[in-house]
Amino acid sequence: MALRKKVRRIGVLTGGGDCPGLNAVIRAVVKTAVKNYRLSVVGFENGFGGLIQNRSRELTLNEVAGILPRGGTILGTTNRDNPFHYSMLIKGQRVFRDVSDRVIENINIQEIDALIVIGGDGSLSIARELCETKGLPVVGVPKTIDNDLSATDQTFGFDTALNTATEALDKLHTTAESHHRVMVLEVMGRYAGWIAIEAGIAGGADVILIPEIPYSIEKVYEKIYERRDHGKLFSIVVVAEGAKTAGGELVVQRTVEDSFEPIRLGGIGNLVAKQIEEETGMESRVTVLGHLQRGGTPTAFDRILATRYGAGAVELVMAGKYGEMVCLRTPKIESVPLAEAVGEMRLVPVDGDLVRTARQIGISFGD
Amino acid sequence: MALRKKVRRIGVLTGGGDCPGLNAVIRAVVKTAVKNYRLSVVGFENGFGGLIQNRSRELTLNEVAGILPRGGTILGTTNRDNPFHYSMLIKGQRVFRDVSDRVIENINIQEIDALIVIGGDGSLSIARELCETKGLPVVGVPKTIDNDLSATDQTFGFDTALNTATEALDKLHTTAESHHRVMVLEVMGRYAGWIAIEAGIAGGADVILIPEIPYSIEKVYEKIYERRDHGKLFSIVVVAEGAKTAGGELVVQRTVEDSFEPIRLGGIGNLVAKQIEEETGMESRVTVLGHLQRGGTPTAFDRILATRYGAGAVELVMAGKYGEMVCLRTPKIESVPLAEAVGEMRLVPVDGDLVRTARQIGISFGD
Amino acid sequence: MALRKKVRRIGVLTGGGDCPGLNAVIRAVVKTAVKNYRLSVVGFENGFGGLIQNRSRELTLNEVAGILPRGGTILGTTNRDNPFHYSMLIKGQRVFRDVSDRVIENINIQEIDALIVIGGDGSLSIARELCETKGLPVVGVPKTIDNDLSATDQTFGFDTALNTATEALDKLHTTAESHHRVMVLEVMGRYAGWIAIEAGIAGGADVILIPEIPYSIEKVYEKIYERRDHGKLFSIVVVAEGAKTAGGELVVQRTVEDSFEPIRLGGIGNLVAKQIEEETGMESRVTVLGHLQRGGTPTAFDRILATRYGAGAVELVMAGKYGEMVCLRTPKIESVPLAEAVGEMRLVPVDGDLVRTARQIGISFGD
Amino acid sequence: MALRKKVRRIGVLTGGGDCPGLNAVIRAVVKTAVKNYRLSVVGFENGFGGLIQNRSRELTLNEVAGILPRGGTILGTTNRDNPFHYSMLIKGQRVFRDVSDRVIENINIQEIDALIVIGGDGSLSIARELCETKGLPVVGVPKTIDNDLSATDQTFGFDTALNTATEALDKLHTTAESHHRVMVLEVMGRYAGWIAIEAGIAGGADVILIPEIPYSIEKVYEKIYERRDHGKLFSIVVVAEGAKTAGGELVVQRTVEDSFEPIRLGGIGNLVAKQIEEETGMESRVTVLGHLQRGGTPTAFDRILATRYGAGAVELVMAGKYGEMVCLRTPKIESVPLAEAVGEMRLVPVDGDLVRTARQIGISFGD
Repeated sequence: MALRKKVRRIGVLTGGGDCPGLNAVIRAVVKTAVKNYRLSVVGFENGFGGLIQNRSRELTLNEVAGILPRGGTILGTTNRDNPFHYSMLIKGQRVFRDVSDRVIENINIQEIDALIVIGGDGSLSIARELCETKGLPVVGVPKTIDNDLSATDQTFGFDTALNTATEALDKLHTTAESHHRVMVLEVMGRYAGWIAIEAGIAGGADVILIPEIPYSIEKVYEKIYERRDHGKLFSIVVVAEGAKTAGGELVVQRTVEDSFEPIRLGGIGNLVAKQIEEETGMESRVTVLGHLQRGGTPTAFDRILATRYGAGAVELVMAGKYGEMVCLRTPKIESVPLAEAVGEMRLVPVDGDLVRTARQIGISFGD
Repeated sequence: MALRKKVRRIGVLTGGGDCPGLNAVIRAVVKTAVKNYRLSVVGFENGFGGLIQNRSRELTLNEVAGILPRGGTILGTTNRDNPFHYSMLIKGQRVFRDVSDRVIENINIQEIDALIVIGGDGSLSIARELCETKGLPVVGVPKTIDNDLSATDQTFGFDTALNTATEALDKLHTTAESHHRVMVLEVMGRYAGWIAIEAGIAGGADVILIPEIPYSIEKVYEKIYERRDHGKLFSIVVVAEGAKTAGGELVVQRTVEDSFEPIRLGGIGNLVAKQIEEETGMESRVTVLGHLQRGGTPTAFDRILATRYGAGAVELVMAGKYGEMVCLRTPKIESVPLAEAVGEMRLVPVDGDLVRTARQIGISFGD
Repeated sequence: MALRKKVRRIGVLTGGGDCPGLNAVIRAVVKTAVKNYRLSVVGFENGFGGLIQNRSRELTLNEVAGILPRGGTILGTTNRDNPFHYSMLIKGQRVFRDVSDRVIENINIQEIDALIVIGGDGSLSIARELCETKGLPVVGVPKTIDNDLSATDQTFGFDTALNTATEALDKLHTTAESHHRVMVLEVMGRYAGWIAIEAGIAGGADVILIPEIPYSIEKVYEKIYERRDHGKLFSIVVVAEGAKTAGGELVVQRTVEDSFEPIRLGGIGNLVAKQIEEETGMESRVTVLGHLQRGGTPTAFDRILATRYGAGAVELVMAGKYGEMVCLRTPKIESVPLAEAVGEMRLVPVDGDLVRTARQIGISFGD
Repeated sequence: MALRKKVRRIGVLTGGGDCPGLNAVIRAVVKTAVKNYRLSVVGFENGFGGLIQNRSRELTLNEVAGILPRGGTILGTTNRDNPFHYSMLIKGQRVFRDVSDRVIENINIQEIDALIVIGGDGSLSIARELCETKGLPVVGVPKTIDNDLSATDQTFGFDTALNTATEALDKLHTTAESHHRVMVLEVMGRYAGWIAIEAGIAGGADVILIPEIPYSIEKVYEKIYERRDHGKLFSIVVVAEGAKTAGGELVVQRTVEDSFEPIRLGGIGNLVAKQIEEETGMESRVTVLGHLQRGGTPTAFDRILATRYGAGAVELVMAGKYGEMVCLRTPKIESVPLAEAVGEMRLVPVDGDLVRTARQIGISFGD
């Protein structure tokens, strides 16, 4: 690398699904940049779309005052708008174009020396490509509410989602007990069952179904019957949206981020509740937690982790560690190449401590 | 009435859907009966079913210690089991029988001098019939989370459900804003839109659809377009499960208390979200709050109202006011004949203050 | 009154202690004014101080977006700055001057046709004086977290404070039980014991001390001994900051709004805890809830009431009902002369339903 | 060691200050013991006192049903009652006796094969002494809400206390901003400032004073002045109860666990608020969070950690690892000798990542 330019001004954007803690990252980036390094900061709106169209605003200390406890992102975000594959209408026809040069142009117009991208797999892949193919000095902050990134010990937003799911279970418990019902809660987790297993343990579930452990519906019935035989006339079942039967295939393919269509057709939670009611004759009800998991004020843990990520990202910039992203190696904030962000997923270890504890206290995984 | 027997022992049961505050009523009944009047109390399990089968337990002060903040009912409850129309299997065939004499028998066996029934329309109707046709000395406590009972100013459980729905809207707001989406929240309210209108005002909704004001989907689009024209790229829509179009018919018949089937087929919230996305092209997502509205620790208001109801019910018993139920005539607890419990519904006044306020701050009812 | 000027522009300010729901009032004022009546709105900063110094800002729809769930007031507030008795430093000496003409001047400079004052006793008295002596067209919105205003059924902020106090009692309960301690909670209420009695009932208190019912510490001991004799080795005592002994005088004069000095010297809560520990030998601990009661996101009830007040205040302006303030006459928003705002206090009725209920379930008032 | 006896029955007790998650540990101990290993479990009441006096009850699955979300401990706890130094009244005089033989006697009477002690420094020291000097087969579960134990990565209860403190800061923020005040929050942490630093970062504090970093009050003024110069007319200060000035001595010696006396005399929070108001002339208010930090329903994290500890403790018993206690070595539950429980404290590393992040975003430690 040639002689590194002195950093005076940085850009920041948020991409992918919203997540509690995004504002805490933005705030920490601005505070660290302005207070500690006397940089200026510009925020691009709505993910890479704002970078492509140069829609941005100056992020001063005043702009980020009071946003720490707020959910969502003041910059806006989107799951779309890839500069290497950008959807456009040309003569009434939808075509996809590589507009990555516009990104570089806008970076130059804004006189930005480095870009911080806060996002998930998709956004960080784009960030990496911009860095590698266009030489954009970029630093990443990982974001996945599912906590399924192997490159970091934990991601912000997860603790908030977990507590939301646990509170939901507390609420469903009283109905389950009072009515002698089976209450099924469907939570996020397309590939990894972190929210399901942790909320299940924290919320006193009897059955937890996660993608990592294929289940048999008969084993679920067995657990419910076993409880009934011990005088427990209700049961709580937590289902990750990506749970699948031992047959190997997803029973129902859907996720909270898809269009609403699949919800109408019914998710895995509905299916499981229906099967249980038909088999056992016990009243069964399903609750799909959906977007409630993404919202709300972040927990203390998520605010702290997000703040550390934000401050750490500015440090990476100042150290010229482009193409890297911050990560948590408990108890330290470190960095890894962006490539690792999109590498292996962090799944719930099937033989790990958490599954073991759950089994010891009598929770069934339907296996 | 002949010379009234001195009351020494009372029974209590909870019927119908569970509701935050039921335990607070039970606790107040027991505390008032035991501490204030030196009575003993027996609780029947699972609504009228427990009365028919004489499944009960002694409710001492210890039994009710610590239950004030807990959701649900320690006695269990059910929507079934009408003693005048009791489902039985005789020679493998389901038949319905009048077993109300068994109720009287069990009351006599237990040496109960009066019965307190905490329940909704259905349970209070049965209570009234037992009182009128069998001479059972019964007193009622009204329960409906929908707050749709004309005989009382407010019912317990409603304030908790309202706050749960409002918190859900707070969470959905951040996603709506960050993603420029239309977020639809479906809440309880088959006939009356109290939760929808109050949560809608409290949660900053842009559109509120309630059963009392038939809506036109075109008016909903209009509001969303109007906001878009003013630079507001997101909208929040609250829909009562009983909302209906100006055509007059319910679009989708379902409720949280039905079997899960209708949820699978899709409720009014799904329909509205789908229509909005198809018409406006804006991403739209639906959340069905469902059973989460019935659970959880009751708010202070609900605990106080429930406590006042419980203490008031014992007073009615001591005053020999059988066939009556407690009610709130702000700020007093009074009583009305049980007949009124099942009379007129308390609907949201279409020309009332609440609707007027909502319209003044720019909320659309789709009319 | 002469021909009334058409209203085109209104001013708004918040005065006195902060209170959950102030932002909801401001938002409703702006939304109703702008959307419904096409007025413009200017907000004065920090109560009457901003009006005296003409520190203000335009309140557009954008300015009030997102403030509904936020505690505090975006306009700032203060307990000082009376235009009829304004503190100034002249030649190094503190003197008080009548600067009310400056207020009128600034109102004219800003071309404001009517002023909405949101505040307590003090602020509304000033508002009334400005109206009566200077002819300022002013409308009031009552604010007192203590809920002690006889002119209105309930004030916003109270329900939030009540729930905060109730949650605190829930937390203290577990410590009390686990450690067999007496836990004393001191809550707001200098003259009226609304928070204490309602939180006490909702939070399962054993003793409630309020200004309206002078207590004897011996009666408090008695209750604690009575519980101990029944095997209850812990007790919960709620004390309003204005509670006083039967001797008639306040034991300790302090309030959360005073300077911190009195807290250091010890409030009534500390005294009661100390007396109990010394007399009974049971470990006793005090918690002073203090400012936590004033903060936080408002409950649904408070947001709705505040919104109704805000919309109602603009209606009063449009109807030319100056010198009046909005009030709640359940279930309607009506208006009364400002004079009534500073009239009689709404105290807890000593023989009312609430006290009666509390006594029936065994709560002692120390009398 | 001789041939180990087959374990059939275990005892469990909780000692020291209460802490969110204690019930979750007890529940996991019982569930794992009964369901997984077919053991029976007896719970001793009120710490070692119950073991000395043989006050206990059988802990069945029913006994622990529903306790997962509840704060406190169903077994009761105390900071007193050391069997090696037991306080007794003999002929009217208080004397201390070694009654550890009674403990062994009661263990034998109850036919208990192993004892699980859940407690802090004090309780685990006693456990260790019973193990080493009396040969009692004991296993420990560490408990300290201050999170200051070097032998484990994190202790349960801390996350709940942290979130309680953070929510308090959220509430104080609105008052601080609305009134342009300095709000001081005093939190637990006699020797280690974990709650203060983490809540301070999560709650957006401007100044954090912790025992590990001696402060100078002048530096605190400086920060407040610096903010004022930038137009920020309010500040938030978080003070650990053990914070001390650079002079080296504790300014005020008190703690939430002491008798109420010191609170009356004023803690460090009061002192700091008073100094700030006197120096800067800005209104300053203090809130002492006190026992609110120990109560309430545990967060998801604390429930999971407590559950893992409980299950892990039974495993230690089954493996015959007596004299050990469970600990978290992220992400695994492991064990260490009890001696380590009372060894080195885990202090906030003065040069660590957390302090560094806090400084980067502009937080002052008063140094």
